Amino acid sequence: MISVVLLGAGNVASHLYNAFYEAENVTIAQWYNRTLKPIQGFSNQVAITDNVSQLVEADVYILAVSDDAIAPLSKALPFEGRLVLHTSGSTSAYDIDKKNRRGVFYPLQTFSKSTAVNFSTVPICLETLVKKDYAFVKTLARTITNKTHRINSDQRQALHLAAVFVNNFTNQLYRVAHEITESQGAEFDILKPLILETANKVQELSPYLAQTGPAIRNDKKTIKRHLKQLEKEGHREIYELLTQSIKKTHGKQ
Amino acid sequence: MISVVLLGAGNVASHLYNAFYEAENVTIAQWYNRTLKPIQGFSNQVAITDNVSQLVEADVYILAVSDDAIAPLSKALPFEGRLVLHTSGSTSAYDIDKKNRRGVFYPLQTFSKSTAVNFSTVPICLETLVKKDYAFVKTLARTITNKTHRINSDQRQALHLAAVFVNNFTNQLYRVAHEITESQGAEFDILKPLILETANKVQELSPYLAQTGPAIRNDKKTIKRHLKQLEKEGHREIYELLTQSIKKTHGKQ
Repeated sequence: MISVVLLGAGNVASHLYNAFYEAENVTIAQWYNRTLKPIQGFSNQVAITDNVSQLVEADVYILAVSDDAIAPLSKALPFEGRLVLHTSGSTSAYDIDKKNRRGVFYPLQTFSKSTAVNFSTVPICLETLVKKDYAFVKTLARTITNKTHRINSDQRQALHLAAVFVNNFTNQLYRVAHEITESQGAEFDILKPLILETANKVQELSPYLAQTGPAIRNDKKTIKRHLKQLEKEGHREIYELLTQSIKKTHGKQ
Repeated sequence: MISVVLLGAGNVASHLYNAFYEAENVTIAQWYNRTLKPIQGFSNQVAITDNVSQLVEADVYILAVSDDAIAPLSKALPFEGRLVLHTSGSTSAYDIDKKNRRGVFYPLQTFSKSTAVNFSTVPICLETLVKKDYAFVKTLARTITNKTHRINSDQRQALHLAAVFVNNFTNQLYRVAHEITESQGAEFDILKPLILETANKVQELSPYLAQTGPAIRNDKKTIKRHLKQLEKEGHREIYELLTQSIKKTHGKQ
């Protein structure tokens, strides 16, 4: 049985709490947050604390806190030589205070409080600064997912940045589509199967091969009409830049 | 039994052929293309022709051809007063020659030759210029999908334009993510569950409510680091423009 102390109460921490709580072979020894309020409701399931000096002994300490809090919180830990992991996509493992054995446990998924996550399909990117800790961290991750990846810091930061494109920016394109359809009294809902199919297609095909539409065909007439049709300057800018980008990728300019 | 003559042999035509071929209560009376070669392989299943003067009588003629071919092909049809539909998202029903009864049968999905399509979840946007034709066209669409929508030309053109954002442009963001991960030797595959979850999330939640990440938090430190990390000017431009767009949508500037 692996014992875990979880630190933090944001989206990642909450989803990790649920996943570890359900997992076999893992016990959550304690849940820490700087304020008790967000975790108070779990006090019947787990020992909770808002005091780092009261942290109990465990096999691993997971800092699921904001990037800026990783360094100071790791410094404040009242012990040495133990295994301490953070969950950040963009922070170096070296940001954790060096008095402990350091590593990263980065689940690459979009988490929101309201939506349940099936952790078994979430890739977890793992890194340990002490080589011999890796096997243990992998065993820990495998209690909640089938997908673990050994990733160094450069790779992890590239993935985190790429995730902004496929998640935040893609979602903003959905938002623009919502604005365009609403402005003509059309239902955004009609686009939902296309949104799903676009995501499904690149599960098998590379995005390069999956591309279709007026930009890759260099269909100037349609592009011109679309630009005329777009009422908002902000939408036109996005249309122009991404059309350019597609043309460039596919050698159409 | 509804009899259909299908005209054209591109992606939409091919997928419509398969869907109608499998459907009950529909028979494909004939398949026309300006050259026989692409449809020759189906001559054991259906009557084929490359000669408009040999088109047989049917309940409906579906012009699944390129936008530019709709007007001339509809003019060349050697009959009058029959029901003629095109499948284009961006072309007016009035582009069909007025000697026939006109309408639109626009399946809003991304089609590629190599990928099979489950038509039952594809929304089909319908319009008829003769009001009493609508019920028939809806019955026809219902033989291959559960999702039909009565859409006027303005709405359809808005949907077609919005589809470019959620399909072509989103796919290009996937491509950029592919380039970013590859440049650091990280696997694009690790992003695939996130791509799916991003699309899944907006099936229930609005894109507005689904947004997360550094732009909506106005996390200047992360944004600055990301921009520094991006090696290609084209990637930086997309990052900056979509970050601006998210901030604007969420009142962060």
